[in-house]
Amino acid sequence: MKLAAGKIVYKTELFDVKEQKVLLDGNKKNIYATVERRPTVNIFPLTETDDLYLIYEYRQMFRKKILGAIAGHIDDNETSLAAGKRELKEEVGMSASHWEEIARIEKSASVIKETSHLFLARDLEQGTPKPEQGEDITLVKMSLNDAVAKVMNGEIKVAATMIGILMLDKLRREKKL
Amino acid sequence: MKLAAGKIVYKTELFDVKEQKVLLDGNKKNIYATVERRPTVNIFPLTETDDLYLIYEYRQMFRKKILGAIAGHIDDNETSLAAGKRELKEEVGMSASHWEEIARIEKSASVIKETSHLFLARDLEQGTPKPEQGEDITLVKMSLNDAVAKVMNGEIKVAATMIGILMLDKLRREKKL
Repeated sequence: MKLAAGKIVYKTELFDVKEQKVLLDGNKKNIYATVERRPTVNIFPLTETDDLYLIYEYRQMFRKKILGAIAGHIDDNETSLAAGKRELKEEVGMSASHWEEIARIEKSASVIKETSHLFLARDLEQGTPKPEQGEDITLVKMSLNDAVAKVMNGEIKVAATMIGILMLDKLRREKKL
Repeated sequence: MKLAAGKIVYKTELFDVKEQKVLLDGNKKNIYATVERRPTVNIFPLTETDDLYLIYEYRQMFRKKILGAIAGHIDDNETSLAAGKRELKEEVGMSASHWEEIARIEKSASVIKETSHLFLARDLEQGTPKPEQGEDITLVKMSLNDAVAKVMNGEIKVAATMIGILMLDKLRREKKL
């Protein structure tokens, strides 16, 4: 399968839709459409006693509040780390002096391209949140063990949040936290 | 934030783009665009000795072969379980007599809607693969421990694959496999 040059057929601030001509064997052609989303960050603030901060946030897509990691898009000309620091401050008013990227994930392997950077944040300090208009966020603190249990029972179901929690659990077991 | 009824502005076999008018406080309006992708399945075939089958597949999006779970879209009028069985057969020629849905995940919490069903497949039987045109797939067998190590070191980086492997590792440690 070979792809000819693509063109953007739909564009928003957060994603593009691109169409590419696919040259199949025997000179057949197909149109292959993909979505490319602005990269995101997910932040996992962990206390000295291994309590994790998550948020309940109203999510239009699910028509309800769901439990997940503090997260957001990376702005133009912003590093992933700067975005992590900004989102942590904006969404829950927190800052952290120790940051570590524990994973850089791809949400999908085909059709939709989105990279997300997963950060562990430690040495936390609480301040005042400045949520964006329309954001309805409740900060929740729970033990890492409880968070893992909620991943395993399906209560936490958003991919990046699941991965961050399961990786932190694994790192802790390996004494790498 | 309230949403008025949406309309589909772009459509392919695998995803729709929908625009919705958002009514903000003070009668301001915004356009909120979302992508809704056809649901997918990810299959984790595990042997009696806890070896896991993964695949190397050429992925246009990354311009190279990457390591990940056997996966595919759910067809119209097809159950997720039927899709799991079909993809396992098509992609690597395998069938399994024991199936268990270990998770139903959401790839994202906003902007892009995609549900993926993660299946554990056991009691495996090898047959002949029937890949779709354009699919270039190599079956890889490795211990669950090796797969976990590849998640932790970033070699395996696609979200659903990471989640399936980390969950299987956790289930095994809890003697639930």
